[in-house]
Amino acid sequence: MTEEAEVAEDLTPTSESEQQAPHFLQDVIFHGKFKLLKALTPQENSHSQHGLFFQDGQRHVDYVLTYPVKKPSGGRSIRSSAHLLTKNAVARSLRRGPKRLEEHLKNHQAQKPRDSQAADVELGLHGETLSSQEDHKMFRREEFEGKLSDMGLELEKDEDAKIPGVCFVKIHAPWNVLCREAELMKLKMPTKKVYEVKQSGSVMEKIGSLVSKVLEPLHPQVEDYQSRNFKHLSHTFSREKKHLFDLSDKDYFFDSRTRSSMVYEILKRTKCKAKYSMGITSLLGSGVYTAAYPLHDGDIIEDSAESNDRKLLYEEWANYSVFYKYQPIGLVRKYFGEKIGLYFAWLGLYTQMLIPASLVGVIVFLYGCASVDDNIPSMEICHPKNNITMCPLCDGVCSYWKLSTACGTARASHLFDNPATVFFSIFMALWAAMFMEHWKRRQMRLNHEWDLTGFEDEEDHPRAEYEFRVMQKSLSKDKKSRHKREKLTCQDRLPAYMTNIVMMLLMIGVTFAIVFGVILFRISTKAALHLSSNPTTRNHVQLTVKTTAAIINLVVILILDEVYGAVARWLTVLEVPKTDKSFEERLIFKTFILKFFNAFTPIIYIAFFRGRLVGRPGSYLYVFESYRMEECAHGGCLMELCIQLSITMLGKQLIQNNLFEIGIPKLKKLIRYIRSKRGAFQEEERQKKLQRYEADHFLEPFAGLTPEYMEMIIQFGFVTLFVASFPLAPLFALLNNIIEIRLDAKKFVAELRRPVAARAKDIGIWYNILRGVAKVAVIINAFVISFTSDFIPRMVYQYMYSPDGSMHGFVNHTLSYFNVSHFQEGKETMDPMHLGYPVEICRYKDYREPPWSTTPYEISKEFWAVLAVRLAFVIVFQNVVMLMSDVVDWLIPDIPKDISLQIHKEKILLVDLFMKEEQGKIHNNLESKASTEGKENCSSRSNNNNNSSTTAHQRSGLHNNSTKSL
Amino acid sequence: MTEEAEVAEDLTPTSESEQQAPHFLQDVIFHGKFKLLKALTPQENSHSQHGLFFQDGQRHVDYVLTYPVKKPSGGRSIRSSAHLLTKNAVARSLRRGPKRLEEHLKNHQAQKPRDSQAADVELGLHGETLSSQEDHKMFRREEFEGKLSDMGLELEKDEDAKIPGVCFVKIHAPWNVLCREAELMKLKMPTKKVYEVKQSGSVMEKIGSLVSKVLEPLHPQVEDYQSRNFKHLSHTFSREKKHLFDLSDKDYFFDSRTRSSMVYEILKRTKCKAKYSMGITSLLGSGVYTAAYPLHDGDIIEDSAESNDRKLLYEEWANYSVFYKYQPIGLVRKYFGEKIGLYFAWLGLYTQMLIPASLVGVIVFLYGCASVDDNIPSMEICHPKNNITMCPLCDGVCSYWKLSTACGTARASHLFDNPATVFFSIFMALWAAMFMEHWKRRQMRLNHEWDLTGFEDEEDHPRAEYEFRVMQKSLSKDKKSRHKREKLTCQDRLPAYMTNIVMMLLMIGVTFAIVFGVILFRISTKAALHLSSNPTTRNHVQLTVKTTAAIINLVVILILDEVYGAVARWLTVLEVPKTDKSFEERLIFKTFILKFFNAFTPIIYIAFFRGRLVGRPGSYLYVFESYRMEECAHGGCLMELCIQLSITMLGKQLIQNNLFEIGIPKLKKLIRYIRSKRGAFQEEERQKKLQRYEADHFLEPFAGLTPEYMEMIIQFGFVTLFVASFPLAPLFALLNNIIEIRLDAKKFVAELRRPVAARAKDIGIWYNILRGVAKVAVIINAFVISFTSDFIPRMVYQYMYSPDGSMHGFVNHTLSYFNVSHFQEGKETMDPMHLGYPVEICRYKDYREPPWSTTPYEISKEFWAVLAVRLAFVIVFQNVVMLMSDVVDWLIPDIPKDISLQIHKEKILLVDLFMKEEQGKIHNNLESKASTEGKENCSSRSNNNNNSSTTAHQRSGLHNNSTKSL
Repeated sequence: MTEEAEVAEDLTPTSESEQQAPHFLQDVIFHGKFKLLKALTPQENSHSQHGLFFQDGQRHVDYVLTYPVKKPSGGRSIRSSAHLLTKNAVARSLRRGPKRLEEHLKNHQAQKPRDSQAADVELGLHGETLSSQEDHKMFRREEFEGKLSDMGLELEKDEDAKIPGVCFVKIHAPWNVLCREAELMKLKMPTKKVYEVKQSGSVMEKIGSLVSKVLEPLHPQVEDYQSRNFKHLSHTFSREKKHLFDLSDKDYFFDSRTRSSMVYEILKRTKCKAKYSMGITSLLGSGVYTAAYPLHDGDIIEDSAESNDRKLLYEEWANYSVFYKYQPIGLVRKYFGEKIGLYFAWLGLYTQMLIPASLVGVIVFLYGCASVDDNIPSMEICHPKNNITMCPLCDGVCSYWKLSTACGTARASHLFDNPATVFFSIFMALWAAMFMEHWKRRQMRLNHEWDLTGFEDEEDHPRAEYEFRVMQKSLSKDKKSRHKREKLTCQDRLPAYMTNIVMMLLMIGVTFAIVFGVILFRISTKAALHLSSNPTTRNHVQLTVKTTAAIINLVVILILDEVYGAVARWLTVLEVPKTDKSFEERLIFKTFILKFFNAFTPIIYIAFFRGRLVGRPGSYLYVFESYRMEECAHGGCLMELCIQLSITMLGKQLIQNNLFEIGIPKLKKLIRYIRSKRGAFQEEERQKKLQRYEADHFLEPFAGLTPEYMEMIIQFGFVTLFVASFPLAPLFALLNNIIEIRLDAKKFVAELRRPVAARAKDIGIWYNILRGVAKVAVIINAFVISFTSDFIPRMVYQYMYSPDGSMHGFVNHTLSYFNVSHFQEGKETMDPMHLGYPVEICRYKDYREPPWSTTPYEISKEFWAVLAVRLAFVIVFQNVVMLMSDVVDWLIPDIPKDISLQIHKEKILLVDLFMKEEQGKIHNNLESKASTEGKENCSSRSNNNNNSSTTAHQRSGLHNNSTKSL
Repeated sequence: MTEEAEVAEDLTPTSESEQQAPHFLQDVIFHGKFKLLKALTPQENSHSQHGLFFQDGQRHVDYVLTYPVKKPSGGRSIRSSAHLLTKNAVARSLRRGPKRLEEHLKNHQAQKPRDSQAADVELGLHGETLSSQEDHKMFRREEFEGKLSDMGLELEKDEDAKIPGVCFVKIHAPWNVLCREAELMKLKMPTKKVYEVKQSGSVMEKIGSLVSKVLEPLHPQVEDYQSRNFKHLSHTFSREKKHLFDLSDKDYFFDSRTRSSMVYEILKRTKCKAKYSMGITSLLGSGVYTAAYPLHDGDIIEDSAESNDRKLLYEEWANYSVFYKYQPIGLVRKYFGEKIGLYFAWLGLYTQMLIPASLVGVIVFLYGCASVDDNIPSMEICHPKNNITMCPLCDGVCSYWKLSTACGTARASHLFDNPATVFFSIFMALWAAMFMEHWKRRQMRLNHEWDLTGFEDEEDHPRAEYEFRVMQKSLSKDKKSRHKREKLTCQDRLPAYMTNIVMMLLMIGVTFAIVFGVILFRISTKAALHLSSNPTTRNHVQLTVKTTAAIINLVVILILDEVYGAVARWLTVLEVPKTDKSFEERLIFKTFILKFFNAFTPIIYIAFFRGRLVGRPGSYLYVFESYRMEECAHGGCLMELCIQLSITMLGKQLIQNNLFEIGIPKLKKLIRYIRSKRGAFQEEERQKKLQRYEADHFLEPFAGLTPEYMEMIIQFGFVTLFVASFPLAPLFALLNNIIEIRLDAKKFVAELRRPVAARAKDIGIWYNILRGVAKVAVIINAFVISFTSDFIPRMVYQYMYSPDGSMHGFVNHTLSYFNVSHFQEGKETMDPMHLGYPVEICRYKDYREPPWSTTPYEISKEFWAVLAVRLAFVIVFQNVVMLMSDVVDWLIPDIPKDISLQIHKEKILLVDLFMKEEQGKIHNNLESKASTEGKENCSSRSNNNNNSSTTAHQRSGLHNNSTKSL
């Protein structure tokens, strides 16, 4: 045996050396089992931990593929016998002796199609029951699963699952495959070496421990599987450096998340050589397989089940009753992987950061409430002695009115239009900068804790759709083109790009059109209601119209949001991006633009355009030559902006985020349940305990984090963009997010299939979008303060025109005079005596020359002065706030001090470790080898050739073996 | 022997396992040679390639340390005999048999001080000739060199060098040390695997090849040591993966740059345990060693010498005659390392990018020249019929003047103040963004070419000064403090920080004061010159004063630049930063702030403050109650800004960059030459061929890239910040840089000692500074266009006030009226009839109400309108240009497409390679072992214990050995 095995190892260059013999042995064993499996009764399944393990109860199921089977199982049995035939060929060839092995290996790739062909012919005879398409898919599966076995994976099929029509392929990755993949993925794993994480100064230490003691109840009760004061030194896993790692428990050295992501890596890498090469994505896309997912760790509901990470997460995280606690981010990452971990860490930090923001926001709002009685302009408006006669608000039916009737609005305006809002918008700009910085630091800290330093994002494999298009293209070019690898050029994509641009513009146009439509609705309704003879109706005109319009806007936004999401996805599919990453980025970009326009266009209209293009009495601007453009109520448009903002934000959050997110999954589940019930799914079978993989099959597949992030980014927009006009926005966002975190957690833990763990160092494009929103927020807030609010006119009046430096006389100063005899014909009011006295001069809000000046109704010097100051304020505000943000950015180091010290320390420790190791090599080897020798089956098996040497030689031989295995 | 050697390997845990035996053998051999060396005559040195190799002509000198020796060599001989004694102890102990070796090793660390003590006693007897300080230094050296030998380095001393008073310690790193360091530094080395770098599309390919054919003569004639179409796959060097690399020529596998940087790494890591631990920096700082440098590759001057990289660089790069060619960046990096390579690559790209900028600048300037005759405002000023009487320019002595006398200035102003400058400043803002993006791409490309992907900046070792301060602190605390590692807290640094802030403010204050002084000079001189009776003097007043003031400014800037450089360094030393990197960053930050203020304060004054605070006729503003604030000439201040800018920029470049940079090194060399001549340095000895290490000792040490970068950043400031007023700046910068590149190259190749190659992925903090300057440039240009130039008033006039939409009447519109009877008493002109007619109304440039309005001399409505438009322009310009820059940033991918494809391809190739390798492991091992077996002395030597086994066993044993060596 020794000799032959050695020869086999020496002469087989087409397959991996080390796993060869064991792999093929296992292959045979596996297929032996495969046959046995059929004979097993369902009762015997129960003790294999409900489907978390193979039938032998030993090998963990790391991944599951499903495919449909026809219910009349006549065809199936033929098929499966054919399948066994193919596999038996391998077994047979093995039985013919080791010499054949090599030959077989060389022919392995070639033999497979031949076998398939043979099976094809065989099927051709019996195969009336199978459509040719089904047939095709089966061959793909055969090929794919064969290749997976070649890569060292072990498969087990379960066709007799309790869900009829679905066959499950369970995949297990044995230890040597895991080692190989860990090396290829350059995974950093904790070594045996432990070091102490020192706290910095002594004073800081005390404060730190005090704070942590106070915050103790806020921490979730998950065991600190990673003690806080000690950290394992990590090192890239390598089979040559096995002695560094604690391999005493090989089953748990790589946890379930890591194992499933390794299997997924192999699945992605493995390609069927069909017309074009098909990876797992293409196979899923073309329906060869229907689903591919890793398994959850266990059940959440039953009390009897022993504790598992999923249950722990469900209890300590995905639970509304722990809403006040920190999230167990480490555990989330351990279970779901870094990408999802980062999302929840980000969401958590954002929610945390909203606490101070909403506190300050509430204080600012309260300041507004408290100071409303000291506000001179509103006092002047409300004072009955100030009997200023205002020009009519609409043509014809409206009459002159007293300014004092606008008292209520003026007082309400003050709540949102006071000096504190200026402070608040500066505060929020800096808050945004701080948030960014904190996130960068948080991210660095997590990267360090999760051993991601040095990890570089790898470019993805091409998407299935892309490869399909490339294949199509090369097929159409066919003969004349050289046989080189094609790719999609700009020319190929031109139609898609054109469609994209046109559709995007169209969609934005639709948004604008709808906003304009709502404006028209508002104007016309107002005009109609003014005509109404009912005085109560007329009194409530303003409020009715505003509220109705805002609600219409909200409904439109909600509907368009869904439409735009679908359109963006459709457009991105049209583009055929090459990789998943590029697909995601393009999709996000488009969705963001569309949803952003959708959410903010009506608000921007109210903030910056409404009431600007009104004209003046005597020459108003008209839309469609009959409707006067809308004005803002006295006291600026800020009040209306605030109403619109709060309705949009609250409505969106309540309806879209919570109602939709809770309701729709429940609805879908119900539908699926009903459908599966209709689909001859026996209720009594359901009563029986479902296998883990069957239970997971009933869950929703994971659809990516994009919608979750998008929701939060739009919310971030509401919180920062117009914060000058609505200081309560952070509070509402905070309340929403406290629910949102647990809602999302519940979804991930209980309602979705377990996502494949993806490594990620950062939140990617979202960070840039956040930065962009924060930047735009500075500019928009500058404009809101200087143009929408009355802050600047008040300042200008106080410091330039006020006779006594106070605000007295401000209201009078902002109102221009109009001689009623200058009204255009037919536009004058029909009820000039409404106020009880004849009016000669009425007032309107604008800076214009009085009728008696040399240039009547011209824009006055005050207008230009106020405009100049407004613009100057914008420049100063924008640049000062940006500078301050940059300073914040610059002052707060991106890498927390303690982390950078720790990284430095780890580097030194590693160099020390290696230097020492070089000295004590042999000594160490002796120990580590002795301890792991018993468990290293694979290595000791192929090492039999050495067993006749001396002990020293065997030792070196052992080492030789582990070296070879990379 | 076999057995004993094995025992020795097993039981010596204090030193590196593999190099132990050979190292000690070599040690003995070396010290044998050391003795032999003394006996060698100088004639025998000549064939060892002039000092590039050890005396044996085999081992390459990778690094040189020098220390001073007393000229009366009486003390020396005693010392060196003592030294030999110590070393002989080792040799003796070795001679006593291998059993002693182990024991000796255990005592090695302990023995050294004992030996030293013994030597100390010995010296105490004879040692009146040596001061105790000299003595101390000698012990440090002993200890340090001993530790270096422990680390595996080989040393050779040359005390009989031709430079008296200097002893050279030559250091050679043997192969196994190089391998170890390469592993620790995670160096990526080219593997044997070669792959083809594919050109993208076929059309692009043709264009590319055409372009490269056209550009062929522009490429420097250095052999393409890295063929363009093929690239070696790189992989982190590891002794376990030796078979991947082409180790056929071990002497050149690591080039001289890499070897010297490895030795430097070891030098930095090795610490003397003195009162506080001293690395090489502390030893250099405390004068234990006087210099530490790697050697240049060879001579540049002589024709006979065979080609070496230095000579090639001198001919093809550091040469004014090749100014039009690309730089051989690959070779520069190969010789000087990545950090310097990046500097020159950056400088090259910057210069290249200046070409389009200066082209457009010249075109804009020419447009100004061409359109000067069509310019209506200057035509109106020059037209003799427009006899506008202007108010006097100074009190008393000046009289009324005709506007037409300002004709020349007005025409000249137009050259720099025309609509094209607006276009040009937008262009330059985008140019800056493009430059940044191009640099990012260039950097990525170089990172890939230089195999730096995945390299992470390591934190440096603490600086000597820092460790000294920490030691002082812990000594002063001494007893009461626990024995934990101290560090400098904020409290320790508080005085330094305070000094820093105060000094920085003071220095900036000095700058402001000087600018103010120059203003006063200008005002008073002008007043004095106006008093002069000489009419020619009076006519040239403006020009004289302006030029003189600008020259004074220039001189002050030049002087302060040097002062500020010194101050910044002093302040940074005070701060005691922890690492070299932090030292550099702090120094750069301070130097940048000071130099920036120094260079730009006078310019900013002229651009934004001059002529703004003048007051109006009848109520001028006075400085010190007697001098009127200066006004700009008619036509805006842009002209003066332009003069100031050009004088400062040209003067700074000509005098500082070129004169100083060429002159000062020459001067220093001369001084050193004279001094060494005075210092009893025999001319005849100089005539003899100097050893390489002696020749290099005469060169200037390398002082970092900071001054080079700083010069360029300030220039970048001149090119971008005020480009709206001086479109020729890019041209001047271009001309300067073409010289600058070659000047710097000459300096690096011929006048400086070879710097230790430092790895770097990017240009670090400079990139951020560049970004900052580019950002500030946008804002400053916006203000220059809208406030300094007359662009906005012209626009406003044309579109708001002009009766016929043309510029006719603009001049009249900008001039306000003044009734001469309103002059303050004593301020009216003494010569009212100067123009030959009595003046009642004179005109001045401002927007104010005429004397006959209800509010005479008040700021007019036009002023506010123009101001509002100016501010609006600033907002629009700033945001549009910033948005465009961001779009440019976003559109141009940071990683060039071909590079990202190549990276992806390399990853796939690597996975393939490893997968294949795993299969063909044994086969490969056989081959690679056979080929390298002959050369691997160190490994085969310690492998003798296996020589009685079978071939197969020996093979595995060999492998075992190479595994052990990490």
